[in-house]
Amino acid sequence: MARTVAVIGSTGSIGTQTLDVLKRLKESEQDLRPVALSANTNPLIEQQIETHRPVAYAFSRELENIPSDIRYYPDSVSLIRDIRPDITVIASSGGESLRYTRAAIENSKRVCIANKESLVLAGEFIVNLARKKGVALIPVDSEHSGVFQLLENESRDAVSRVIITASGGALREWPPGDLKKATVTDVLKHPNWDMGAKITVDSATLFNKGLEIIEAKHLFGLKKEQIVPMFCYTSYIHALVEMKDGTIKIHSGHPDMRIPIAYSLTRPERASLGLGLEGIVKDKLKLKDLEIENHRAIRLVYEIYDMENAFKIVYNAANEAAVELFLNKKIGLSQIFDIVESELKRNQRGSIDRIDDILNFHEEIKQTIYRKYKWRERL
Amino acid sequence: MARTVAVIGSTGSIGTQTLDVLKRLKESEQDLRPVALSANTNPLIEQQIETHRPVAYAFSRELENIPSDIRYYPDSVSLIRDIRPDITVIASSGGESLRYTRAAIENSKRVCIANKESLVLAGEFIVNLARKKGVALIPVDSEHSGVFQLLENESRDAVSRVIITASGGALREWPPGDLKKATVTDVLKHPNWDMGAKITVDSATLFNKGLEIIEAKHLFGLKKEQIVPMFCYTSYIHALVEMKDGTIKIHSGHPDMRIPIAYSLTRPERASLGLGLEGIVKDKLKLKDLEIENHRAIRLVYEIYDMENAFKIVYNAANEAAVELFLNKKIGLSQIFDIVESELKRNQRGSIDRIDDILNFHEEIKQTIYRKYKWRERL
Repeated sequence: MARTVAVIGSTGSIGTQTLDVLKRLKESEQDLRPVALSANTNPLIEQQIETHRPVAYAFSRELENIPSDIRYYPDSVSLIRDIRPDITVIASSGGESLRYTRAAIENSKRVCIANKESLVLAGEFIVNLARKKGVALIPVDSEHSGVFQLLENESRDAVSRVIITASGGALREWPPGDLKKATVTDVLKHPNWDMGAKITVDSATLFNKGLEIIEAKHLFGLKKEQIVPMFCYTSYIHALVEMKDGTIKIHSGHPDMRIPIAYSLTRPERASLGLGLEGIVKDKLKLKDLEIENHRAIRLVYEIYDMENAFKIVYNAANEAAVELFLNKKIGLSQIFDIVESELKRNQRGSIDRIDDILNFHEEIKQTIYRKYKWRERL
Repeated sequence: MARTVAVIGSTGSIGTQTLDVLKRLKESEQDLRPVALSANTNPLIEQQIETHRPVAYAFSRELENIPSDIRYYPDSVSLIRDIRPDITVIASSGGESLRYTRAAIENSKRVCIANKESLVLAGEFIVNLARKKGVALIPVDSEHSGVFQLLENESRDAVSRVIITASGGALREWPPGDLKKATVTDVLKHPNWDMGAKITVDSATLFNKGLEIIEAKHLFGLKKEQIVPMFCYTSYIHALVEMKDGTIKIHSGHPDMRIPIAYSLTRPERASLGLGLEGIVKDKLKLKDLEIENHRAIRLVYEIYDMENAFKIVYNAANEAAVELFLNKKIGLSQIFDIVESELKRNQRGSIDRIDDILNFHEEIKQTIYRKYKWRERL
C-alpha cells in the first residue's frame, strides 16, 4: 500500500527537491504518494499541484483553476491534522515551522526534518515529543543525515566524537581581517552548494554550522565535547564518527540534497535516484584505480569468481606453494602468477563438499608443484 | 556473566593480537574470558597460558610446568568440542583451519574468523552452516570488518558496489616489467602493515586481494560486479560501500589489526582499547581543523551549548535579523557577529516551553534589532 507524504514548504529549495525525489521514486519499488503540499505565497505551488495531484494543499489564498476535489486549507497545521500523512517532510524555513513540526509529530509516523529552527528553538521539546509518540524523526540536512546513517546500530556509549564538516562558504580563503569588506555578492558565491541567500550567508559566517551543532546535540544526544566541526572544502565528506575503539566511519557523496532527502523518505531502504553519481571515490577521496588487467592475481580471481570451489582451492593452494618456493629462492616473483594460472588451467575438478576431500585436494595441488620444482616433500 | 573465548592459533600474528585485545578489554565493561588457547608448535603458548590462565589448551605435545587443572588436548577440534566457548576466534592460518572453523560453528555462538582458507576453500559450506546454526560469523580482516560494519542495517538490495582497498604491497611503485627482479627482501618490506612473510608476499602480488575478493563474495553474498578492489596507499581507508542512492560510506582507521579483532569480539558494543589513535582525520583524510577561537559563530554556540533554549532562540533570531540587514546592505558582514554576541549577552530569559512563547520571543529579538537599525517593522 502506498505511503502518503505531505511536503510542507513545497516551493522552497528543499521542497522542490523533495518533489523531484518523489517523482524519481515513482519509477522505483518505493510506493510513496505526495498527498499534501503547502506553501506560503510562492505561486509555483499551482504548477506543483497540477503535476503531483495531491489530495489537499495549504496556501495563503485559495487558488482558482484547481480541480474541485483537491481540498484547500488556509494553513499547514490544519492541513497536517486533517490529512494525517504517513510521512511529513518539514521543508519550510523559519521559526513558524515549529508549529508544523509539532503537528507532524502528532499526526504522522515519520517526520523528515529539514527545518533548522524546530530543533534550534525547541530541540528538547521536539525530540521528547517524537520519542513519546514513537515517531521517527529523520534529519534531512546532509551532515545530520550522514551522522544518523553512521550511528545506526551503534550504541551511543561507543561514540567518541562526531565530526560535522563545513565547506567554509564563500569567504573561506579570505584573511579574517578582510571580512569587513565582504559585499553581499562576495558572500553569495558559495563554492559547493546552491542554496537560498540566508543559508549561504550563514555558511560564510559559520552560523549555519553553529545552528547545526545545536541540532546535532538534540538529534543525537551528544555532549558538547563530542561534536567537532571541521572544514572539508570539497563538501564531499559530510560527516565522520569516531568510535571509541579507534574506528572511523565516514559519510560521503555528491553535495546533492536529493540524496539525504530520499534517504529520509525511504529508510531503511534506499532507492536508485538515477543521479549519475560518479567520480567521488577516485577524484575526491584520492583512491587509485586498480586496473584489473594489469594485475594477474585479480584478473584470475574474477575469472573463477562464479566457478566451483575446486578452482578456489587451486587458486589458494598454488599460490601458497609458489610463495613458499619464492621465499626459499627457488623461483622469481612473477613465476608465482605463472604457477597459479597454469594450475587453474589444468584443473578438472568441480564442486568438492567434504572437508577431508577439500584438504586432500589442496595438499595434492601443493605437492604437485613442489615435486615439479624439486622442493621438499610433505612437511 | 563472562562470555568465554577460545583463541585458535594463539601464537600467530592475529592470535597474539587477540590476546592483547582481551587483556585490554579486561579493564573495560566487556566481560570476556579467554578459556582456551591452541597452537601448533610455537612454545610461546606456555607463556600465554601462564598469563591468561585458560581452562584448557591444545598443542602438538603436552606441556610440563603447567598447572594440572589446565586440561590438555592434542588438537583444536576436540578442544573446541569439549569447551564449547561462547566465542571462538579462528586466528590460525592454513587449510587445516577449515576443520576448526566447522567445529567452532557447531559449538560456539559467535565465530570471529581471521582464517582466509575457510572461506576461500569452502565458502558456501561455511556460510550455510553458520546460517543453519544461527551462528554469527564475524570477519576479522580489516577490509571485511569494514564492509561488515558499513552494511549493518542496510538491505543487500541497496548496495551498488563494495570497494575493498589494497595497499599494493612493497612493490606498488615498481614498473610492472621490474617485478621479475624483485628479491625476497624487496617483497618483505611492506609499507603499512607488519604481518607474516606469506601474507606480505601475497600483498605484493595482490593474491591477498584475490583471496579477499572470494571471502567477500561469500561473507556478503555479492555479485562479481559488486566487488571492486582499489588502491589506497595509506591503508587508512579499509573499505567503502556505494549505495544505490549515491551515498558512499567509508570505513577508516589506523592499520592496526587489534581494532577489527576487538570489534569482532564486542559487537554490537565497542570498547576503548587505549590505543591512542590520533591524526587520521586531519593528516590522512585531508580535512582541515576549524579553530573555534577564530570563528565567532562557533565559539558562541559552544558557550550556549548547555544553556536553556532562550539562548538558542536568541542565537538564531539575532543571526536571522542580522543577515537580513546584511543582505539589504544596512550592515557589514562582521557586524552579524557583533549583533548576535551582544544580544546573547543581554539575554535574561531561561527555559521557554510553549511554542507561542518561543515564537513571540524569537520575533521580539528580531524586532529589537530591526528598530535599532531603523529597518522595516514586522513583515
